[in-house]
Parts: sequence; C-alpha cells; structure tokens
Amino acid sequence: MTEGRADIALIGLAVMGQNLILNMADHGYTVVAFNRTVSTVDEFLAHAAAGRKNVLGAHSLDAAVELLERPRKVMLMVKAGRPVDDFIELLLPHLEPGDVIIDGGNSHFPDTIRRTRSLEQQGLLYVGTGVSGGEEGARRGPSLMPGGSPEAWPLVKDIFQSIAAKTPDGEPCCDWVGEDGAGHYVKMTHNGIEYGDMQLICEAYQLLREGLGLSVDELQQVFAAWNEGELDSYLIEITAHILGHRDEDGEPLVDKILDAAGQKGTGKWTGISSLDLGVPVTLIAEAVYARSLSAMKDERVAAAQVLTGPDARFDGDRDAFLEDVRQALYAAKIVSYTQGYMLMREAAREHGWHLNYGAIALMWRGGCIIRSAFLGKIEEAFDRTPDLQNLLLDRYFEDVVTRCQPSWRRVVTQAVQLGIPVPALSTALAFYDGYRSARLPANLLQAQRDYFGAHTYERVDRPRGELFHTNWTGTGGKVASSSYNA
Amino acid sequence: MTEGRADIALIGLAVMGQNLILNMADHGYTVVAFNRTVSTVDEFLAHAAAGRKNVLGAHSLDAAVELLERPRKVMLMVKAGRPVDDFIELLLPHLEPGDVIIDGGNSHFPDTIRRTRSLEQQGLLYVGTGVSGGEEGARRGPSLMPGGSPEAWPLVKDIFQSIAAKTPDGEPCCDWVGEDGAGHYVKMTHNGIEYGDMQLICEAYQLLREGLGLSVDELQQVFAAWNEGELDSYLIEITAHILGHRDEDGEPLVDKILDAAGQKGTGKWTGISSLDLGVPVTLIAEAVYARSLSAMKDERVAAAQVLTGPDARFDGDRDAFLEDVRQALYAAKIVSYTQGYMLMREAAREHGWHLNYGAIALMWRGGCIIRSAFLGKIEEAFDRTPDLQNLLLDRYFEDVVTRCQPSWRRVVTQAVQLGIPVPALSTALAFYDGYRSARLPANLLQAQRDYFGAHTYERVDRPRGELFHTNWTGTGGKVASSSYNA
Repeated sequence: MTEGRADIALIGLAVMGQNLILNMADHGYTVVAFNRTVSTVDEFLAHAAAGRKNVLGAHSLDAAVELLERPRKVMLMVKAGRPVDDFIELLLPHLEPGDVIIDGGNSHFPDTIRRTRSLEQQGLLYVGTGVSGGEEGARRGPSLMPGGSPEAWPLVKDIFQSIAAKTPDGEPCCDWVGEDGAGHYVKMTHNGIEYGDMQLICEAYQLLREGLGLSVDELQQVFAAWNEGELDSYLIEITAHILGHRDEDGEPLVDKILDAAGQKGTGKWTGISSLDLGVPVTLIAEAVYARSLSAMKDERVAAAQVLTGPDARFDGDRDAFLEDVRQALYAAKIVSYTQGYMLMREAAREHGWHLNYGAIALMWRGGCIIRSAFLGKIEEAFDRTPDLQNLLLDRYFEDVVTRCQPSWRRVVTQAVQLGIPVPALSTALAFYDGYRSARLPANLLQAQRDYFGAHTYERVDRPRGELFHTNWTGTGGKVASSSYNA
Repeated sequence: MTEGRADIALIGLAVMGQNLILNMADHGYTVVAFNRTVSTVDEFLAHAAAGRKNVLGAHSLDAAVELLERPRKVMLMVKAGRPVDDFIELLLPHLEPGDVIIDGGNSHFPDTIRRTRSLEQQGLLYVGTGVSGGEEGARRGPSLMPGGSPEAWPLVKDIFQSIAAKTPDGEPCCDWVGEDGAGHYVKMTHNGIEYGDMQLICEAYQLLREGLGLSVDELQQVFAAWNEGELDSYLIEITAHILGHRDEDGEPLVDKILDAAGQKGTGKWTGISSLDLGVPVTLIAEAVYARSLSAMKDERVAAAQVLTGPDARFDGDRDAFLEDVRQALYAAKIVSYTQGYMLMREAAREHGWHLNYGAIALMWRGGCIIRSAFLGKIEEAFDRTPDLQNLLLDRYFEDVVTRCQPSWRRVVTQAVQLGIPVPALSTALAFYDGYRSARLPANLLQAQRDYFGAHTYERVDRPRGELFHTNWTGTGGKVASSSYNA
C-alpha cells in the first residue's frame, strides 16, 4: 500500500458503508475502509470486498488518512449524533486545511450547521450529505443530497455523481443542495415525504382490504397495475412485491406482520421543523402520528372491544371505487409534495440557503425510497417556471387535482361512512380546500384572541400591519396587548 | 412602609401583573409592585391601585424584597424567556434559602425544569405556574397551575387558591400540579387544547356560514343557544358575543376582521412535544397548522382564482344539519381532550411527574379560556376511575361519542362534498376510527421498512419483542438491521 494513492476513506462498515465502498470501487475509485471494531475491516476485505485491489483496509485512523491523496476526503457512515462528533474529534489531528470531512448519516440538520461552521473555522471543509436508497441503493446507486462548504463540492462531485443513481435520462441523482445543513434538511424532508407516501399507500390498502374486502392476491394485482400508470414508483412496486410474498407455510407474509410501526425520528423532525417554521405540513404530521397510534397495539385492541363504529357496508361499484382510490392517492400525494416544497422554501428563507428546487426533484428521481415517475413531473414544473411558488399552481398538477378531485372526495366520504381511518387522505383534502379558500374562519379566531387576550387584529378594510383592539365586553382596563399572552 | 409587612412581591406591571396584584389585594394580601421601568410603578399606584393601602410600590428590587415577610415570595409576570432568567439573576443577591421565586409567565417547560433545579441547588424554592384567563381572569379569578419545588406549595397555597377562580361548587381552580416543569407543561397543554377548541368553533362557524349561508345574526343565535347545552363554555359564550358585536357603522365587526391568525407559540410547543413523545395529538397539530395556513392570506386569495372546488350546494334539512354540527363539535372536542390527556400522561412518564388528572380538570373548570361544563364531566370520569387510561373509555364519553357519531360522520361528509375545510373535525374522526381499530395497516408499513431498510418487524404469531427480517428480494447481503436508517 502506497501513501497518497487512495481517493477517499470511508469510516463505518455497517451495511450502508460497505455497500457505498463497493459502489465507489465499481466506479474505479480507490477507497480506504476503516471501522472502530477493526476485525470488521478484515472481515469486509476477506469477504464482501474480496479480490478488489482498489479497496484498502486500515487498522487505525492514522493509517487510513495516510493512504489518502490530498486534499483528503474522509466520509463517515456512522450512527447520527454523538458518534459523528467523536469521529470528527479523532480525525482532526490527522487532517490539514483544505481536507474534507463528509457525513453520510441521517444527521439532524442543526448538527450539520454547527459542524460546518466549526470545521470551516478550523480551515477544513465539511459536507453533510443525505444518502437514500437503503442498502440496495447504496450498492447500486443511491440518491445523494450533499450540502455544507461550497468549496468542497468540486472536490467530491465526481465521486458522488459517479456512484449516484441515474434518472431514466441518465442524469445523476446528485447535485449540490446548498450551504451548511441544506443537504441534511432536504434529506430530512425526503424522509418526511417518505413517511407520507407510505401512509397513503397503507390507507389505500386498508380501504381496499377492509372496505372492499379484497384478498391479498387481489391487492397484489391492484398495486402491480397501479405501478404501470402515473403512480409508478418504488414504494408502489415494493408494495406489490410484499403482497405477493408468501411465508414458509404458504400464507401471505404481510398478514403475519404486527401492525405496530416504528420510526427513527426523521419524520418526526420534519413535523417539528414544520411547526417551528409555521408551514402547514399536515400530511407528514398525520403520517407520523399514524405510526404512533399504530404502536399502541394493546390499547387499540382493548378499545376495539368498547368503542363502536358505523354499521355501513360498501355497496357501490367496486371497480369504480378502485379507480377512485387510485386517483385519491395521486391527488393526496401531490398535496404532500406541495407541502414538502413549501417547507423547504421556508427553511431556505430561514437559514439563508439557495436551493435549486428542480434539482431536488432530480435528486429524488432515482435511487431513493421515494423515487417515482411523479418526480419527473415536479422537475418539469420547475423547468417551466423556475420560481414556481407552489406546486399546486403548476398547470400539470392543477389539472391532475382537478381531474382527481371527485374521486378523492368520494373516497374520503366512503371512508368516513365505513369507519375506516384515512388521516392522510383526508388532511390532504382539507389542506387543498383550505389553500384554495380566499376566506377562512380565522377572522373569528382573531376576534376570540382579541376578546380574551387583547392580541389585536387586522381589518379587511385597512392596510395590513395596522392593528386594532376592541373592548368587547365594555369593561376592563387599558387596551394595549399585554406582554403576557394566554 | 414597614419592613417585612408584605405577603408577596410582583414584578412586571403589564396588564396581567397589575390585575393579579389587584386580585391579591382584594383578598386581603399586601402586595409589593415593582417594574423595571419605575415610572410604571408610580402610574399604577396613582391610578389602577389608587387608594389601596395594601398595594405598596417599590422603586428597586432591593426595596421590593425588603418589604417582604419571610420566607419571601417574589412572583415574576414578565415576558417568557430571557427576561425571566435576567430577573432571577437580579433577585438572587437579595434572597436567602427558603425564599420562593414564582414565574407566572408562559414559560416553556424545559426552562422551568432547568430553573427549578438550578434554584433548588442554591437552597431556594421555585414555582413555575400556569396562569390562564387573560386580563379578566387575572383580575377576577384565573385558573392557576403551579408546579416546581413541592416545598413551595404550602407557602403559596393560600394566596393562590384565594385569588383563583372557583368552580360552580366553590372549589378553587388551583391545585398543586407536580414537580419542576409540570405546571407549565399542563398550562402548555391547556393552551394547545385552547387552540383545538377555537379551531373546532371556527370550523363549525365556517360550515354554517359557507355551507348553510347563515347570516351573522343567525350565527349569533346558534352559538348562544349552544351555550345553553352541553357545549356550555367560555369560548362558545364569547363567540356569541363576538358575533353580536357591531362596528361603528352598524355592520358586524367580525366580518371586518382579517382572516389571518397569529400564534404565540404554546400551541406549537404542544404539537412539538407530542411529536417528540410519540403521542398522536392530531387535533391540536391541525389547529396550529390551520393558523399557519390562514396567515398565508395573499397566497390563498391568489390560489382561489386558480384552484377549483366542487359545485355542490347544501340541499338537506337545515335544522337537522345545525344539530349535526353541534354534535360533531362535541364529539371532536372529546377526542381533543382525550389526546391532550394522553399527552400529559406520557409527559408525566417521561419526566417523572405525579399528576393528578382529575385535579387538572378541576383547575381548568373555571377561570381559564377553556373553562366549560364539559370539564366537570372529565373530573367526574376521574372520580369514577382514578386510573382511567383513556377518556374515550369512560362510560360518559363513550356514550356521547356513540350518540354523536352519526352526526359527526354526516358533517365531515357534507364538508368534503361542499369543499369546506374541516381539518380538526375530520382528524378527530380519523383518530377515533384509528383508536378503535384492532387492526391498522401498519403491518404493510413495517414490511416496507424491512424491505428497503432491513428495519425488522414483529409477528402476530410470535411474542412481542422478537424481531424478524425477510430477504424480500432474494438478493443483498447480511440481514442485520443497519446502523444507518433510511
């Protein structure tokens, strides 16, 4: 092993890290592999990376760094949180100004903002990159969403775009996202949208299973057929695969799986960020809450013995309803992405990021969990109108929502009448109806707030920003809004 | 002015602070008033507190503290955040072990946890208390929700319970909530529930205004009538007052108010805490998001020109629909409080608080913004079953929801068909249907997570906690769940 012959070092040899190394090696890069438990390095070289001359093992950070050409590039694929800070600390004595540390974990964006600033102050460059696509994506081509020090981009661009997934047109699903935490913010939003997409599919599945009484085989055929049309996407595709998968006893495996969903926090972060920024990302929040509710399995089973639902049975046209559900799913998906884009726009404003919204759709077009034909439509919308304020106002999405709307309303109505919960489908519809309402009832709400808390209000017949207070009760003291707010 | 003759000092003479002082003085306590801008003290003594011998002014913190009997009690009614810490710092040199600092602002509960610990380490006692009821409540009897150092409670109990609102049975709407941040947590939850109650009222108003086309006068009569029945509550009452209020030109004032709602953060905090703790508090989150959406007034007005809704017109029985809306509102309100109580229960588990859930209902029974006859029913439920796991499982609430359910479903259906957004009414129904579902579609979701991320799943035919992974695609490497989670 010669000093300075390797292109990049990767630390953390869990499945994702191993697969990224193999992917880089496939594309001709020489990669140094390191892991805190050093035996993992040897095992990796002896098995998964056996016979590959451009995968080098290192038994210490020092040795790993020595093998790198300058400026050095060290990528961390370790657990988000403390381990990232720990490895940065350990790496610092071995690096010099201009070197690049890359974090490919699911780090929370405020951590990435902090780390970028700290490392830039020390003359180093930092990249926090979203990596999506799971194990398979890492191996064959993930979606990569890098942000951080802009000077780092030219240094990592070739590697990143080489190993990234490609769109059907051959473009890499990787581009520079923006400053400091922008890459991880966009990845977080991606994961939030992934929560939403999965919840929508689950609601469709539940409607067809409980409402229409479809068998697993019929459900498998429905999703496989949907995947041939405008719903064409990875998640619909794997749903069909899952529904077709048999357990060892020949029964459908999906029916043996406990209906209690876990979560790893990125959906929750998206919801929290949306509340913080005041952006109505209702569908993702409902998807996160739906997982929480699912996890209360014992409580639900007990409640099902006590609380009753409607007696209704579906008695409409089954094929028509199937098509209604498909259209409702597509329309609600449009709302979900609309909300996600609203969130990214507000976050960019808040943090001073310069995001390229069309490029984000391109990055998500392949490789990642939410990849879909649909994202091509989003890219086209931003091609048409680079400063598009809201996806719903693009003519394609406006047309789709207009077309799907009657189906969407029938599906939510049917679900309500059958007592089948569809929180994501219905919040999406409520958002759509709210967004297109020139007049919402918040005038009454502002009156209430002024009544009990002297919060003041604006008037429709006076300039924005001019504040009024009414002494509603005819009693009470001074009318200035108090510093204390109930 | 004699040293040591006063019962308590109050710092911060905005409207809430002034009114609390007058309330204390009415109940025979001698109160020292202090404000950072000292001229405010003189103005207060010369006007609002004129002629009251038991309201003393102080021109310095030193002077304020000197007038107090020991152990000293100093209450802060200053803006939440930094000002509270600043005043605590300023007070410390003037206090001694056993003295009590009380924060009556809308502080965020983690701050109160931190302050309680810090002051207890210095031998002082700390109380973070929720104060609700707005200006009028502060003056005539607020709801008080004190938490903090348990040793402080006997020292402030008499003052607090004297000035607090009283239930119709004469009980004070103030009791000890729990350790460190428990009081402010319960106040935060109260405010979140307040967001939910207000949103539900707004949705009912919007349905009757846009759906039935009721005039403001008719709306005023509807809410006034509702306030005579099981919806009897402060917020319904003031809604009727607001709807009856005329502008100077004789037109209804509510129609002149801009439909763009503000927020001060406590509803948002509730939503964030619920996401953090994994409790599905969907109705409050939707209420917060509805305010955010309302604030996008210009965007909504523009979108209303482009995006279309259904053509439907209401053509049912108007009186029957009015009653449906009333019942839907009541049922959704039950869900909202159910979720709020689920949240407090989980927060208590997380923070080690010992909350008395019946007492919390009692504290909210009067004085505060969400006061209502309904809260008496919650208190009764906890009297019947002190360890009640979920409000929906109490026989009263179960009965009401069963009774209201057909109306509730008709209302959401009607709203969907008319294109009127009712996010809170509909998320409440989705929650109800989800909570009473023994089987949710999360089995499919877990299969998806295992498919793309090797997240593993549990099985219905195996003990909980036993984790399984399926190699769904028949390809790929090791099956252990990766440390990296997409």
